[in-house]
Amino acid sequence: MAQDKKLVEAITSMDEDFAQWYTDVVKKADLIDYSSVKGCMIYRPYGYAIWENIQKILDTRFKETGHENVYMPMFIPETLLNKEKDHVEGFAPEVAWVTLGGSEKLTEKLCVRPTSETLFCEHYANVIKSYRDLPKLYNQWCSVVRWEKNTRPFLRTREFLWQEGHTMHATAEEAQEETIRMLNIYADFCEHDLAMPVIKGPKTESDKFAGAEATYAIEALMHDGKALQAGTSHYFGDGFAKAFDIQYTDKNNQLQYPHQTSWGVTTRLIGAIIMTHGDNNGLVLPPAVAPIQVVIIPVAQHKEGVLEKANELKDRLTKAGFRVKLDDSDNSAGWKYSEYEMKGVPVRLEIGPRDIEGNQCVLVARHDRSKDFVSLNNLETEVANKLEAVRAGIYAKALENRASKMTECENTDEIIKTLNEKGDGFISALWCESEECEDKVKELTGVGSRCIPFDMQGKEGKCVCCGKPAKTTVLWAKAY
Amino acid sequence: MAQDKKLVEAITSMDEDFAQWYTDVVKKADLIDYSSVKGCMIYRPYGYAIWENIQKILDTRFKETGHENVYMPMFIPETLLNKEKDHVEGFAPEVAWVTLGGSEKLTEKLCVRPTSETLFCEHYANVIKSYRDLPKLYNQWCSVVRWEKNTRPFLRTREFLWQEGHTMHATAEEAQEETIRMLNIYADFCEHDLAMPVIKGPKTESDKFAGAEATYAIEALMHDGKALQAGTSHYFGDGFAKAFDIQYTDKNNQLQYPHQTSWGVTTRLIGAIIMTHGDNNGLVLPPAVAPIQVVIIPVAQHKEGVLEKANELKDRLTKAGFRVKLDDSDNSAGWKYSEYEMKGVPVRLEIGPRDIEGNQCVLVARHDRSKDFVSLNNLETEVANKLEAVRAGIYAKALENRASKMTECENTDEIIKTLNEKGDGFISALWCESEECEDKVKELTGVGSRCIPFDMQGKEGKCVCCGKPAKTTVLWAKAY
Repeated sequence: MAQDKKLVEAITSMDEDFAQWYTDVVKKADLIDYSSVKGCMIYRPYGYAIWENIQKILDTRFKETGHENVYMPMFIPETLLNKEKDHVEGFAPEVAWVTLGGSEKLTEKLCVRPTSETLFCEHYANVIKSYRDLPKLYNQWCSVVRWEKNTRPFLRTREFLWQEGHTMHATAEEAQEETIRMLNIYADFCEHDLAMPVIKGPKTESDKFAGAEATYAIEALMHDGKALQAGTSHYFGDGFAKAFDIQYTDKNNQLQYPHQTSWGVTTRLIGAIIMTHGDNNGLVLPPAVAPIQVVIIPVAQHKEGVLEKANELKDRLTKAGFRVKLDDSDNSAGWKYSEYEMKGVPVRLEIGPRDIEGNQCVLVARHDRSKDFVSLNNLETEVANKLEAVRAGIYAKALENRASKMTECENTDEIIKTLNEKGDGFISALWCESEECEDKVKELTGVGSRCIPFDMQGKEGKCVCCGKPAKTTVLWAKAY
Repeated sequence: MAQDKKLVEAITSMDEDFAQWYTDVVKKADLIDYSSVKGCMIYRPYGYAIWENIQKILDTRFKETGHENVYMPMFIPETLLNKEKDHVEGFAPEVAWVTLGGSEKLTEKLCVRPTSETLFCEHYANVIKSYRDLPKLYNQWCSVVRWEKNTRPFLRTREFLWQEGHTMHATAEEAQEETIRMLNIYADFCEHDLAMPVIKGPKTESDKFAGAEATYAIEALMHDGKALQAGTSHYFGDGFAKAFDIQYTDKNNQLQYPHQTSWGVTTRLIGAIIMTHGDNNGLVLPPAVAPIQVVIIPVAQHKEGVLEKANELKDRLTKAGFRVKLDDSDNSAGWKYSEYEMKGVPVRLEIGPRDIEGNQCVLVARHDRSKDFVSLNNLETEVANKLEAVRAGIYAKALENRASKMTECENTDEIIKTLNEKGDGFISALWCESEECEDKVKELTGVGSRCIPFDMQGKEGKCVCCGKPAKTTVLWAKAY
């Protein structure tokens, strides 16, 4: 299997240079190509298909929970962006500005949306008049632009794809419920469909979204021990409603300000999948979003009946709802094995003359190369089971990685020692809630606050930094 | 039914002022809202849902014919746009330019894509090396920007949504076949799913897409007799391939230039639906793309059992795959009838106490208000039949409108006379293929060439303008 070896050699080992391994995988698995537009990337068919699968699953969940899709303009006039003070301060430094239309200079410059709160609010002011108009549960799928200095495919790009939900509610309670509801939908999606464990909780004050009263995040730990924020959900109170003069008459005919949320996930999730599940043979894709769930490799395909059988199995599995590819090209079986391992296809099905004789085939799981001979009689069930085994297997592996890299620390020296000895990972530690301590932990140890995990509260003791009484446990880490 | 009357009065009659009728419908049916960004519009949930249904059907057809979705950057550097001479001349005057990123002036200005041939070609130069890499059959769904002076919702906006297919083929023949294949897919979609008759054919030389060797269009006739270009498919030859240095080695190891196509439809289709099928009661939506296919209106809903039965029917129809809404609000039945007529819902289902007693309900078609009492036993079939009756009915009506407004003319005086007597419509007339005559017809009569219909060729005679021998029949009209 010389070909096989050659392909595998072509990517850097993840233990040697994780960043280079990542770059190799996104290129060799045909996920992206670079363009001449600095910081923007091309989503190739295989990479875009992962995003389409993410969209399908999430869009269904959004609609099941009563949300409707809309589409807002991609441009925001400067005066509109300026309407909410904190918001503009957060975003203005990193937006792209259109100043010319055709050959004429615009009278007012337009920014390419970095996020669309202002556009939604302008529209909400037109369509929300009465309590009967509430709630408004809107979402849009689009691309946004943030003029980042340093970029990496999927993780940080000047243009990226995302969905942004923007909702308006009669009361603060309803809006807060929505904020948590969407955070939970994101977390369930990550844990179940992406097989990626996440930790949920609010961000600290200094880390909130520009203009929000509260920001909640889901935090995942990558294979190299760095954290990645996989999704956020914001509660705005009525701050934007006041800035944009959005009011409704309630049942008692009194004017009220509605309460607002927004929430989003982006194509970063694809980066998270790569760095959570990938290995030295390339990508490992969770079955729910894999463009190809099963690749069929015919063995000795020139022999009579092999391709016919392979095609028959493909049709059966396709009909059963699986995403299947049959590779009947004249590349060697070895080359094909490497190729689809690189692409992270969860299950490989091998079928040759002897298998056909025995009315069986071989199923190989991507993540652990476990091999099963299964009867063709109940192939659909066998494939479903094998896919579920991949999902459960990669979830368990990711959970184990996280557990092995999660350490509780009592002071900054312990943090430094932990990072030196165990490498990067999650640190949990008590915090006195002062921004000064938060900054100082970062300065001394390099780890920043990720969130205040819902599931880690209840402990009292001393602040990891100043030693004063503290009862808030914060999750700290270096992050993408 | 005072409410009913009030609502209907709220839109201008189409015979009185067609343009105002159109504007009234897009607003009153909740399709769009205006934004503070001149020329850009907000797609509200009901309007966007029509686009989502269009996307679903077309995307399935694209994938069935082997196409894959990708996503290219939204920005094009000036030097990249300039690479193909005809192309840049066609587009440069109408693009929006980004000149600032954050607070810094960009070293090279970036245009917001008006179309993406140049971006696709840059990528194709990277990924096409051998005949084994061909064909490349890519498509993307995105928004594009053209800095139009005069804008109208759906018909002409500065930002609009579309799909753009871009394909590369080993030979000219294959690329030409693809160009026609996609034109036919568009035509079938318009005729069958949108119930909108279209005429297919190439554009004249002067009307081709910037950089194309041939442009094919589908042309529809709106209710007011003006034409609307509903989709285009372009054959590029190897012009872009040469400009972008895209070459592949063929089976004989010779370097060759591949041949290219592109094709697109836009949210204009929604404008076309409105102006083809709408009437003085509002929208009339083709069932295939209607966000709500059946609206259930309970009659005397306070009476025992009515709402239960209405909900039961809703569940049955939803389960059978129909898009159903039950309106159990406390608005009057009359108000509801008007509301869903305004929104163009193809079928209304009425159910009241007497219907329940008789194990029946009433189905009313939107376009002709035809009313059927049907048994609840086979409701699913009855609803499917009624929806098909709406589709067939509005298609026949549109075809009749077009037939009554299609006139063959032998000279420009006849054209002028026809337009004066019959109003706007399609004119078919022979043309000598000189651009001078094409321009003169427009100048003298106001109608421009729309396409050279495939199905109208074979006749020989005199040019409608200069009287010289001619054998090309052109379709002429005023157009949106």
